[in-house]
Amino acid sequence: MPFDALENDRLIRALLKQPVDRTPIWIMRQAGRYLPEYREIRKSVPNFMSLCQNPKLACEVTLQPLERFDLDAAILFSDILTIPHAMGLGLHFAEGEGPIFDHPIRNAADVKRLKVPDVKNDLGYVIDAVTTIKYALKNRVPLIGFAGSPWTLATYMIEGGSSKNFSKIKAMLYSTPELLHDVLSLLAESVTQYLNAQINAGANAVMIFDTWGGLLTEPAYLEFSLTYMQKIVAGLIKHNHQGVVPNILFTKGGGLWLEHIAATGCNAVGLDWMINIGDAKRRIGNQVALQGNLDPAVLYGTPEVIQKEAKQILKDFGKGTGHVFNLGHGIHPDIDPERVKVLVDAVKGFYD
Amino acid sequence: MPFDALENDRLIRALLKQPVDRTPIWIMRQAGRYLPEYREIRKSVPNFMSLCQNPKLACEVTLQPLERFDLDAAILFSDILTIPHAMGLGLHFAEGEGPIFDHPIRNAADVKRLKVPDVKNDLGYVIDAVTTIKYALKNRVPLIGFAGSPWTLATYMIEGGSSKNFSKIKAMLYSTPELLHDVLSLLAESVTQYLNAQINAGANAVMIFDTWGGLLTEPAYLEFSLTYMQKIVAGLIKHNHQGVVPNILFTKGGGLWLEHIAATGCNAVGLDWMINIGDAKRRIGNQVALQGNLDPAVLYGTPEVIQKEAKQILKDFGKGTGHVFNLGHGIHPDIDPERVKVLVDAVKGFYD
Repeated sequence: MPFDALENDRLIRALLKQPVDRTPIWIMRQAGRYLPEYREIRKSVPNFMSLCQNPKLACEVTLQPLERFDLDAAILFSDILTIPHAMGLGLHFAEGEGPIFDHPIRNAADVKRLKVPDVKNDLGYVIDAVTTIKYALKNRVPLIGFAGSPWTLATYMIEGGSSKNFSKIKAMLYSTPELLHDVLSLLAESVTQYLNAQINAGANAVMIFDTWGGLLTEPAYLEFSLTYMQKIVAGLIKHNHQGVVPNILFTKGGGLWLEHIAATGCNAVGLDWMINIGDAKRRIGNQVALQGNLDPAVLYGTPEVIQKEAKQILKDFGKGTGHVFNLGHGIHPDIDPERVKVLVDAVKGFYD
Repeated sequence: MPFDALENDRLIRALLKQPVDRTPIWIMRQAGRYLPEYREIRKSVPNFMSLCQNPKLACEVTLQPLERFDLDAAILFSDILTIPHAMGLGLHFAEGEGPIFDHPIRNAADVKRLKVPDVKNDLGYVIDAVTTIKYALKNRVPLIGFAGSPWTLATYMIEGGSSKNFSKIKAMLYSTPELLHDVLSLLAESVTQYLNAQINAGANAVMIFDTWGGLLTEPAYLEFSLTYMQKIVAGLIKHNHQGVVPNILFTKGGGLWLEHIAATGCNAVGLDWMINIGDAKRRIGNQVALQGNLDPAVLYGTPEVIQKEAKQILKDFGKGTGHVFNLGHGIHPDIDPERVKVLVDAVKGFYD
């Protein structure tokens, strides 16, 4: 049953630049803190990771936004840090402080101890969640799998958590780059195996989040972030039992480097809100699909503003296929869910 | 004496795209925490603002990096938040938390209470510092004055301090934009008067720091940040007793919008490290000078890496005038000052 044809395959078609009846929409972090029903479930477990590690609850949370809004995709509820967690770096989430690793990677000995996680043994809970969600979804919409980019994962592993200046990883980049390349190679292999397991379990598309690649110089971005994403793209399984599985690369702050991103062979490029989607389309729209790119803060606006800004993006993209509507980054946790409904209706209503 | 001719006017000449014998260099936050002699002075006062408010100490700190390194400019030691402080918003710096305003701007009543500060009465300590520095500098190098951009100042005033998502100011932008425009107009007028007072006191160039403009959409950047910087540029005094006073606009993350920034009529555009300076020159180098743009994190690298990366920027800029070497953002506080010497020597040595 989970591999019968999708009822709604707009997302997949748009990612492959095939004709669609209307622009599909989903929302980064659509399952999350802005939903009261999510906060309810979150209260029932001691910490954030235990929610990710419980396939039944991860499934429940994944489906919550689909009950409220007419979205064209579900996205696996999980976290990009599952991989470093599986590598034994001692991940925990301090209240209000974000992720912290007890055993950050700082020197050659630390790097030597790193191993590609065994997906079945170390990340089986994620794959179980994918399977559980696929059954629960009943093919209403596609399921998106995801992972962090090697560079972005490495920032957390080397900094030991969130960072402002990325001093430690950049010190490594500019003083012992070969050590950083070892970490990134290992992460690229890990992400490839991890995403392929998600695809085999039924993910219909996969997205790679490069949240911090935009803080590199152009040559450093190409060498330390994009190269590894390209390796992953090359190593991804391209079809599963349900058909073609497109991939999406998203680098926040990568607007200057779109041509390079499109040249990796990915199917789609995720756009943050700083770039005009019309300009992005003129630059790379003949090669790849585009996903985005409403400023998440527009959802603080009145319904009229939300409608106006959403329509502007649809107009800027213009005619032709290859657009997946989304925010330019994850939805903020203090957004009123009613505003999301306004947005989804505005995107759907654009065609009426 | 403070208005005799400058001994070293490379900075001014480069900002005006006039011929120079070599590319001038100065470093954002060159007077600051990475210098042990700065930390010594800082210990002698109870808090950061009292250092800014003491013209004698501000002068001493301003001159410290010039004693160590062969820099082509001094920059006033101060803070962009002097203006909101003078507006009575109750600024203090919490240990390790950055600036906090006790009375942030949240509604129409708050906005109504705001007034353009009287520079003489409310910001006289800054102007006194400029005068003190001019005497102490003895015209060895030009003195750069500065201010925050209206948008960037408004982020702190409305958020109440530093911010991750800029939720409050963006909520205002998307729900009551006219209120935000009132704040920004007032700030543009304040910054203009403030910079003109610095120019009259002897500043040889002025720079406007738009640290957070890069987190807007393109139309919002144009409407809520750049328009106000353009107003300031139009209102700036263009000559003082020492000659032409060029201005520099710097928007961190503004690489996609360089053409718009150059079109304001500014003399120079500051570049962060994410954009290739050669590309920037091809796009706007015929109109304006360029300042930048070494990744501040390169200073964590070995001397060889620092030399290589600095030379790459000089090569990327290529022949012709109109380049002021700098970092792409402020120097990190944990940088070894010896690395700065390596950088300055590399830039100077490029011509040997």
